[in-house]
Amino acid sequence: MGRVTERRKVLRIRDGVVSSRPDTLVAEEPLEIRLNGKPLAITMRTPGDDFALAAGFLVSEGVLGEQDDLQNIVYCAGATADGSNTYNIVDVKTAPGVVIPDITLERNVYTTSSCGLCGKASLDAVRTTARWPIADTPPVRVTPELLASLPDRLRAAQRVFDRTGGLHAAALFTEDGELLDVREDVGRHNAVDKLVGRALQNGDLPLSRTILLVSGRASFELAQKAVMAGLPVLAAVSAPSSLAVDLAAETGLTLVGFLRGGSMNVYAGEDRIALRAAAAQG
Amino acid sequence: MGRVTERRKVLRIRDGVVSSRPDTLVAEEPLEIRLNGKPLAITMRTPGDDFALAAGFLVSEGVLGEQDDLQNIVYCAGATADGSNTYNIVDVKTAPGVVIPDITLERNVYTTSSCGLCGKASLDAVRTTARWPIADTPPVRVTPELLASLPDRLRAAQRVFDRTGGLHAAALFTEDGELLDVREDVGRHNAVDKLVGRALQNGDLPLSRTILLVSGRASFELAQKAVMAGLPVLAAVSAPSSLAVDLAAETGLTLVGFLRGGSMNVYAGEDRIALRAAAAQG
Repeated sequence: MGRVTERRKVLRIRDGVVSSRPDTLVAEEPLEIRLNGKPLAITMRTPGDDFALAAGFLVSEGVLGEQDDLQNIVYCAGATADGSNTYNIVDVKTAPGVVIPDITLERNVYTTSSCGLCGKASLDAVRTTARWPIADTPPVRVTPELLASLPDRLRAAQRVFDRTGGLHAAALFTEDGELLDVREDVGRHNAVDKLVGRALQNGDLPLSRTILLVSGRASFELAQKAVMAGLPVLAAVSAPSSLAVDLAAETGLTLVGFLRGGSMNVYAGEDRIALRAAAAQG
Repeated sequence: MGRVTERRKVLRIRDGVVSSRPDTLVAEEPLEIRLNGKPLAITMRTPGDDFALAAGFLVSEGVLGEQDDLQNIVYCAGATADGSNTYNIVDVKTAPGVVIPDITLERNVYTTSSCGLCGKASLDAVRTTARWPIADTPPVRVTPELLASLPDRLRAAQRVFDRTGGLHAAALFTEDGELLDVREDVGRHNAVDKLVGRALQNGDLPLSRTILLVSGRASFELAQKAVMAGLPVLAAVSAPSSLAVDLAAETGLTLVGFLRGGSMNVYAGEDRIALRAAAAQG
């Protein structure tokens, strides 16, 4: 546990010149998440913050919504032949009275819709499961200048990326641009789950005055996680997908993409972006 | 089906100047893969090449190994309330006599090992499931110069990336550097599944004289897909993870990372890299 990086020997070739040296890699290990003793999902993750990862995953799945929903989280020992602990299995126990929705073993499985399996059904499932409709959250307004400043702050806060180049990062900021938390993981969804799970553990859900910044692209899955945590603003350094934009438009999430060097695209929820009227052009 | 990109209105902000314009996004939609009528997995993918995606996914899972294992693949109609077809569900029918391994609903679930859930168990599962041990494949040797030329060829062949910035790409090359096939998808694993599935449909498995290039990072999952398709060389533009390197070392896969601008790191399988002895340094 806690093996965020590992060292391996590597053959380095630079313009025909070959050298052998140790290299730092991002660690990747499977984590099985159990819910009240029953296996629910396995994710390939960077070890560390495993309890937060499990809790955040269950927020995204609609199982957990507040600190009191959680009784405890433990590493399962005795999972191996010799009884030792690999620290790769966690069991999340919900508090008495918590109703477990009918979730499946596979992420993003939203088949209980009348329209069959399609993007619309996926959107409907998130909208009906979300506990904190974004439209009901306190009004948050951020300037383009503030948004533009966030990627540099994220980079400055990243501890492992510069050594491995193999990590996705996600960070939470206040509406004033103050960094609240940053997490890194080999999987982009895991980094967000770790942030959200930590917030649940601290009693900070919904994250209704908070901006989520991700270092890569904005997929449907990441937009879903933002909505399920009550986050009003999701900003991504790279491109969003069509379904992420549709989900943002349908739920009222502000979705910003290509946030780089003073530029950005706003794909949905423009009302939270404080534009100077004089600067607007047709 | 075939909606590789979609158009959405976007608010573009460049150094304080705001404009409204249409933007091209990569399409993302769920695809349910059924095996002989039974739901097996759902993946968020870019529509198109869905049959190849399903076939390649089943090669990675150890279900399909050759063209004759496959009876047919169809879109399931009647999956919606009104009986229309969303083209988001495919059913793969295996030929009589094909033995279906005990696979689970979740990707990367390798829990049937004596050592509990850990990276080692994941490696063992791939090694014991692989049909074409890489060590037994014909000797393939590639020069660093040839490898260094591949990313530019991939970029030139990518059709959608430049318009959306939201796609992962994967390509197959011969050992002489000839481009065989390129696929793009919102999910990096899907792009590889589409390549491998197409190869299965064409009777080209194992891909034992072929180089796989991916536009991003090399995770355990991508290394697993390479091994399961009998590919001897996996090259990635970005970083590999620790478990991808371990899998490569254990199976004999040549794994190249950070393949950019004449430079690269070789993490495993160095014997397939043709180095000029004079250029080697301690």
